[in-house]
Amino acid sequence: MGKGRVENFSDGVLAVAITLLAVDLDAGVPSNVPLATQIREQWPSFAAYVLSFFLIGAIWFSHHFLFQLTNTIDQRLMLLNLLLLLFIVTIPYATATYADYALEGGADARTALLVYGGVMEGMAISRFLMAHHILRAGLIHSPVSPPESRKLLFRYRFGVLIFPINTAIAILTSAPIMLVLHALVVVYYLGPGLRPIAVGSNPGSLTTGSTRNAPDP
Amino acid sequence: MGKGRVENFSDGVLAVAITLLAVDLDAGVPSNVPLATQIREQWPSFAAYVLSFFLIGAIWFSHHFLFQLTNTIDQRLMLLNLLLLLFIVTIPYATATYADYALEGGADARTALLVYGGVMEGMAISRFLMAHHILRAGLIHSPVSPPESRKLLFRYRFGVLIFPINTAIAILTSAPIMLVLHALVVVYYLGPGLRPIAVGSNPGSLTTGSTRNAPDP
Amino acid sequence: MGKGRVENFSDGVLAVAITLLAVDLDAGVPSNVPLATQIREQWPSFAAYVLSFFLIGAIWFSHHFLFQLTNTIDQRLMLLNLLLLLFIVTIPYATATYADYALEGGADARTALLVYGGVMEGMAISRFLMAHHILRAGLIHSPVSPPESRKLLFRYRFGVLIFPINTAIAILTSAPIMLVLHALVVVYYLGPGLRPIAVGSNPGSLTTGSTRNAPDP
Amino acid sequence: MGKGRVENFSDGVLAVAITLLAVDLDAGVPSNVPLATQIREQWPSFAAYVLSFFLIGAIWFSHHFLFQLTNTIDQRLMLLNLLLLLFIVTIPYATATYADYALEGGADARTALLVYGGVMEGMAISRFLMAHHILRAGLIHSPVSPPESRKLLFRYRFGVLIFPINTAIAILTSAPIMLVLHALVVVYYLGPGLRPIAVGSNPGSLTTGSTRNAPDP
Repeated sequence: MGKGRVENFSDGVLAVAITLLAVDLDAGVPSNVPLATQIREQWPSFAAYVLSFFLIGAIWFSHHFLFQLTNTIDQRLMLLNLLLLLFIVTIPYATATYADYALEGGADARTALLVYGGVMEGMAISRFLMAHHILRAGLIHSPVSPPESRKLLFRYRFGVLIFPINTAIAILTSAPIMLVLHALVVVYYLGPGLRPIAVGSNPGSLTTGSTRNAPDP
Repeated sequence: MGKGRVENFSDGVLAVAITLLAVDLDAGVPSNVPLATQIREQWPSFAAYVLSFFLIGAIWFSHHFLFQLTNTIDQRLMLLNLLLLLFIVTIPYATATYADYALEGGADARTALLVYGGVMEGMAISRFLMAHHILRAGLIHSPVSPPESRKLLFRYRFGVLIFPINTAIAILTSAPIMLVLHALVVVYYLGPGLRPIAVGSNPGSLTTGSTRNAPDP
Repeated sequence: MGKGRVENFSDGVLAVAITLLAVDLDAGVPSNVPLATQIREQWPSFAAYVLSFFLIGAIWFSHHFLFQLTNTIDQRLMLLNLLLLLFIVTIPYATATYADYALEGGADARTALLVYGGVMEGMAISRFLMAHHILRAGLIHSPVSPPESRKLLFRYRFGVLIFPINTAIAILTSAPIMLVLHALVVVYYLGPGLRPIAVGSNPGSLTTGSTRNAPDP
Repeated sequence: MGKGRVENFSDGVLAVAITLLAVDLDAGVPSNVPLATQIREQWPSFAAYVLSFFLIGAIWFSHHFLFQLTNTIDQRLMLLNLLLLLFIVTIPYATATYADYALEGGADARTALLVYGGVMEGMAISRFLMAHHILRAGLIHSPVSPPESRKLLFRYRFGVLIFPINTAIAILTSAPIMLVLHALVVVYYLGPGLRPIAVGSNPGSLTTGSTRNAPDP
């Protein structure tokens, strides 16, 4: 199975999903309410847009990293990739639901938190299963040492654990807290803090050293 | 005709169509009806979304497989590909129609089933014609033995037969049955059950053996 | 300027535009009017969708053919390509306008015909200017003989002439006539009738002979 | 990090964003107001569509130019690219807001100008930071002389300065003035006036001479 076309199709889906996020930003029609007031009241939409944008960016980053390791695509990887895309494609829906209901309070805000958290958890599980399968089935360019493999899997298992925790905290406290907690997850995945594995210019080679063009997983 | 650009354009169309499916999931505006109740009542939308997502995934899989066999793109293949895309692009419309009318019952539910079934049948016929043309006109990397060719064509002819049968059963019984029947078709195309032809690392070579990176047709 | 990225970006725009066409097909919400009746009354939407789909397909075909000839992309070609994309991107708008107003009759149907014809004319002029510039500025792999060059330019000049003629006939007779007349244009560009220039397996080589993988311009 | 996939993903986002611009052109449903009158009254939508289309075209041009210089993608460049895409994706929103409110006058027109100007300024700053980082961190194919580097950075710093100035002038005079002022910026970036740096057929080589396939930055 051609790695190029799987990447190309996945990039297309990620690009459309990340762009559709902004479709839910809506200026509305001119009314008695001043535009500036409307925009201020829409702040959950803007905040959720920025969060989901960087979350999809971080997923793209992970996807790119995992496929860079990979030199063989078997049927299971193909299906896990499809499962990952299934959840990614619903992120604009989850974002719009959060934006519309997060400030409503009560049961509706909790439901919206569960929708957003559920979509992210589905994504995180698919991503972890992809990483696990790539490493365990040896679909990789060059061998990965056990400690490196553990570090990498820890990184994606962390996502599986943190989204339900963040969601539970937000349900118990208040819906806007979710934005802050998930933003910290984005920082973890995109930020400079953790860079356990570096990819050199040799595609697919895994080293623990830090090179200039080292992408984070 | 460059195979790369035809694949690239087709990947783009498939990626946009699969992502637009989720646009019909709609949180709606806050109202007296609790969000959780709204979501439960929208279950046909979610079920139809998941079904159509994996159906498009299976079509992408077939498309990829057929183009991997192909080394020459003539005008007829180009037109058949365009015909296939014509039906793929209407899958979000068919999905939304099914989701909105399947539970209405009566004539409207039957019409919705015919719309969904008609789009899938148009897709299946175009795909069969593409496979048939590629094999008959010899637009392939290396010769395919008659039994392999028959197996491959059977696989796509099956799609042409099964969608009308599923649609008829659903019309005679109840609209939600369609989801189950079509889901079995997805399992047939994406599942591990049937893997008559395996593509080795040598692009386009057809073998009957099973190799690790063997894509299903 | 990298030809690959210009093709990639253009393919993306064409793929999104062709897929957005179907967004205007709308099942509507359940109402007193049976779904079957709604769909029958929406026939201009479906007819316009199919026409615009194949028109964009034919434009993609032309675009692919012209870029296959080209080995150099200068700034003017880049700008003409952007101009072509500007009109392509408005085809879904023109299609929706036609579908909504073609059967209204009177001034509104005429306006809708002018919108659709105007967008197609803008596309045809941009495409002709692109072909003209590529041939005149010599941005090509190998020399094109004067008769071949004339044949090719005739093909795109024909588009510049035929869209206003079709639009005028439809305005003077009735709006649905446009669908038939433009469908004939699609047959001209995608059909087997005219194949004056064939591209062999050697990329960019122009021959008058007919080879198996000969794309029409 | 693979340059190809970053370009591919960015092209996808740019292609979707430029195509979604036209979704805000809306024929509306047939009503008492003649279609021709509706279209005339919608002129800010059409003007804003054309402006934003060429602005995104110019951004694609810059993006292509900067990545053509680059041979290494580090984490910071990846994040700056994501930041640039964040603003690009909101251009359809800013365009729709301008189109709906620019002719309203008063506070709403000023707010709409601030939204459009703010999105463009965010884009311009991200682009400048990208160019600055690529040159300063030496992520380039071949060394760039200090004068060439200064010229290039001036070009992108100009964008950072001109968008707030244009926005301020439009707020102090009238909203439609913005279209003219921003159109001049488009001419600056896409036009033939300034071509300080030419890229030869040798990818990434920087020369001050003008070659045929010289892209503007």
